[in-house]
Amino acid sequence: MNQPENRRFLLIRRPHGTPQPEDFRLETKAIPTAPEGGMVIRNHFISLDPAQRGWMDDAPSYMPPITLGEPVRATTVGIVHESRLPGFVPGQWVLGLNAIEDYSVVLPGGFTSAIDIAIVDRPSRYLSAVGAVGMTAYFGLLEAGQARAGETLVVTGAAGAVGSMVGQIGKIQGMRVIGIAGGPEKCRRLIEDYGFDAAIDYKGKSVAALSADIATAAPGGVDVLFENVGGDVMDAVLLNLALHARIVLCGLISEYNAPDKVGIRNLWQIIVKQATIHGFLIAGYVDRFAEGGAQVAQWIGEGRLRVDEDIQHGIEHSYDAFMRLFSGANTGKLVLQIA
Amino acid sequence: MNQPENRRFLLIRRPHGTPQPEDFRLETKAIPTAPEGGMVIRNHFISLDPAQRGWMDDAPSYMPPITLGEPVRATTVGIVHESRLPGFVPGQWVLGLNAIEDYSVVLPGGFTSAIDIAIVDRPSRYLSAVGAVGMTAYFGLLEAGQARAGETLVVTGAAGAVGSMVGQIGKIQGMRVIGIAGGPEKCRRLIEDYGFDAAIDYKGKSVAALSADIATAAPGGVDVLFENVGGDVMDAVLLNLALHARIVLCGLISEYNAPDKVGIRNLWQIIVKQATIHGFLIAGYVDRFAEGGAQVAQWIGEGRLRVDEDIQHGIEHSYDAFMRLFSGANTGKLVLQIA
Repeated sequence: MNQPENRRFLLIRRPHGTPQPEDFRLETKAIPTAPEGGMVIRNHFISLDPAQRGWMDDAPSYMPPITLGEPVRATTVGIVHESRLPGFVPGQWVLGLNAIEDYSVVLPGGFTSAIDIAIVDRPSRYLSAVGAVGMTAYFGLLEAGQARAGETLVVTGAAGAVGSMVGQIGKIQGMRVIGIAGGPEKCRRLIEDYGFDAAIDYKGKSVAALSADIATAAPGGVDVLFENVGGDVMDAVLLNLALHARIVLCGLISEYNAPDKVGIRNLWQIIVKQATIHGFLIAGYVDRFAEGGAQVAQWIGEGRLRVDEDIQHGIEHSYDAFMRLFSGANTGKLVLQIA
Repeated sequence: MNQPENRRFLLIRRPHGTPQPEDFRLETKAIPTAPEGGMVIRNHFISLDPAQRGWMDDAPSYMPPITLGEPVRATTVGIVHESRLPGFVPGQWVLGLNAIEDYSVVLPGGFTSAIDIAIVDRPSRYLSAVGAVGMTAYFGLLEAGQARAGETLVVTGAAGAVGSMVGQIGKIQGMRVIGIAGGPEKCRRLIEDYGFDAAIDYKGKSVAALSADIATAAPGGVDVLFENVGGDVMDAVLLNLALHARIVLCGLISEYNAPDKVGIRNLWQIIVKQATIHGFLIAGYVDRFAEGGAQVAQWIGEGRLRVDEDIQHGIEHSYDAFMRLFSGANTGKLVLQIA
């Protein structure tokens, strides 16, 4: 399946709001060679994540913006093509922070980990359940959110890759779990596929109407909010917090493409309920991935945890695949397979 | 100075945005009598606080809304006028949650504490430095904010009653302290009267311009934000957080009178900086008032802490006095003296 050349999905213009096809260009270059102390990776699976939209802006973030003219930064799973780095040999599967391109150069000191694909049904699992997505759900809910049995959990973006895992882990922990998602089909899946106790469709609802639905589903208030969405959906949940609620602020996907953000208007409820908001980045937990990965793998093996992947195909479809994150089209962790 | 009758400052209409004189009415009634197991208090000093604006709305809060036709709820310092409650005798000074009225009925189970006015220069201190205001500054900064020597503290609403104490306590703790306030006179006082390291005037500045000023004053980022204001001022500070910043969310005074709130648009920085927002109500610390009050009284006695009071006079001026909270006119804790 390898290509004789290296196709690269470049960012050539910073998006204003929703990314447009003209913000990107697919170029074809020669396959690179490994630098002294580095490697060349043949990428097979590319992780597509909301965070990439943030990296396209020229704004302060936890990583520098993607340089214009360079390929879009991405976590990938691939095979070592050429190695001048001790400990890595051609043919070996690795996980690393690379880019949307057939071949990535790993410089000395770059982040690359060997992965054991024998314990998973397909290598892309390292981009979902046993990778950053799964660990975000696991450590976000249990550590940042301090989730406890008997409490009420609300998950926004509940049908997404992180959200669906959060809700299921909440059920495993003995919580009452309410998911908020867009559209009846996603809500059906929350109940039937992921075992949520209740599902609320936010589409077409005012903040007041959505708040009323949440109050009905969580009459005792919301103890833990796992927030992936922001905007009006978050504002509606804020009106239903229980005393000393914990909010795990994991993503604000409704705001990434909004140049004129509405903003969060019910933050005063954080004071009223003596609640806490924890800004969550999985980077704070990398040293505990082995522990979390083992627990998640065990739950999957026991059939208690279902993790869906939405695998799209072909680097030439990078733009359309990426936009599935924002259109509400994807179900499960979005992955682009390019080899 | 006692009046033969009981004047009461009633809420007769819920304000939409900025309170109007027509939202209130001063009525005159007979002096009430004490119920079995209760008391009547002659109020002398009335605390005027932003929280009272929130209680005027018909919205979920940590206390029920003020009932229309009833006087505006307020913390007061006064003298027991009649007591049928064991342990309290006429002539004794007390602090309690009552209302803007000459005489308040304390029902059985109501919140009233005996106070020792011998340790303070005037009884109104129990509404400021050694009362809820001072304890908000003390426990908010040191417990919720986990302030540490060598860190950078930003205080918004810095020239206010809480803010000016927070900044001074920060200096006592060995922090670099930056205050944000409205207008050159307030900024002058932050430096000259309260010993802040830097003062920034937010008036007439865009979020971007204010953010740039904060970046200049806090080149290493903001470790602790003590937030009294919200809105654009908070949004500008959010763009300058240090990693693992703590935000003590104490008030959102810029938003209380805004029916079409702009909202907070830079909440994504909470994720990026793995920051935490703590919704702070002093109610969570009432059992530690003796500890905090003793420390604050000691600092005042040592001349290390300056606490200003803005004492207005006459219950007939209740509306004008209350509005000083929102006009930026008051300097120090706002108190209405009615006897």
